[in-house]
Amino acid sequence: MYIIAMYDINTETKAGRKRLRHMFKLLKKYLIRIQNSVFEGELTKAKFEKMKYEVNDIIDSSKDSVIFFKSRDIKWMDKDICGFEKDDTDNFL
Amino acid sequence: MYIIAMYDINTETKAGRKRLRHMFKLLKKYLIRIQNSVFEGELTKAKFEKMKYEVNDIIDSSKDSVIFFKSRDIKWMDKDICGFEKDDTDNFL
Repeated sequence: MYIIAMYDINTETKAGRKRLRHMFKLLKKYLIRIQNSVFEGELTKAKFEKMKYEVNDIIDSSKDSVIFFKSRDIKWMDKDICGFEKDDTDNFL
Repeated sequence: MYIIAMYDINTETKAGRKRLRHMFKLLKKYLIRIQNSVFEGELTKAKFEKMKYEVNDIIDSSKDSVIFFKSRDIKWMDKDICGFEKDDTDNFL
């Protein structure tokens, strides 16, 4: 299935900035980065559940938000980009 | 059709911070905010094209990125949330 993942991590504290780094590394393991805090890619259900388990392990659920949109097939989704397109090899947070 | 819109606006300059405010106000006119820079909602094709025209009017396409995912029907998309869910009435950038 096709996944779009986006996160808002509260970085007001040192712990929050650490959570942000961990979240960035985690999602880069599974998906392709298309915007600062947005990732996309194709995953099996099992891989998605494993990623989600690891996400829940990282976040402070009272301060952080991670949203996944799942579509059974990429052909049911169109993508439109205005402005520049992020280069996935860029490792800046 | 169902739209997910997400933006990365370069706010290093005063002009960039102004673009961010304008983008926030624009997308709030058409969609519901679900994360700091992510919005979702149902739009007709005509309304989507009008919003996209206004987005292109705001951005500096060498510095900013706006991505739209469009699905013909919300039933083809599942949404999963980890952590807290944003309250759309919150007007903080």
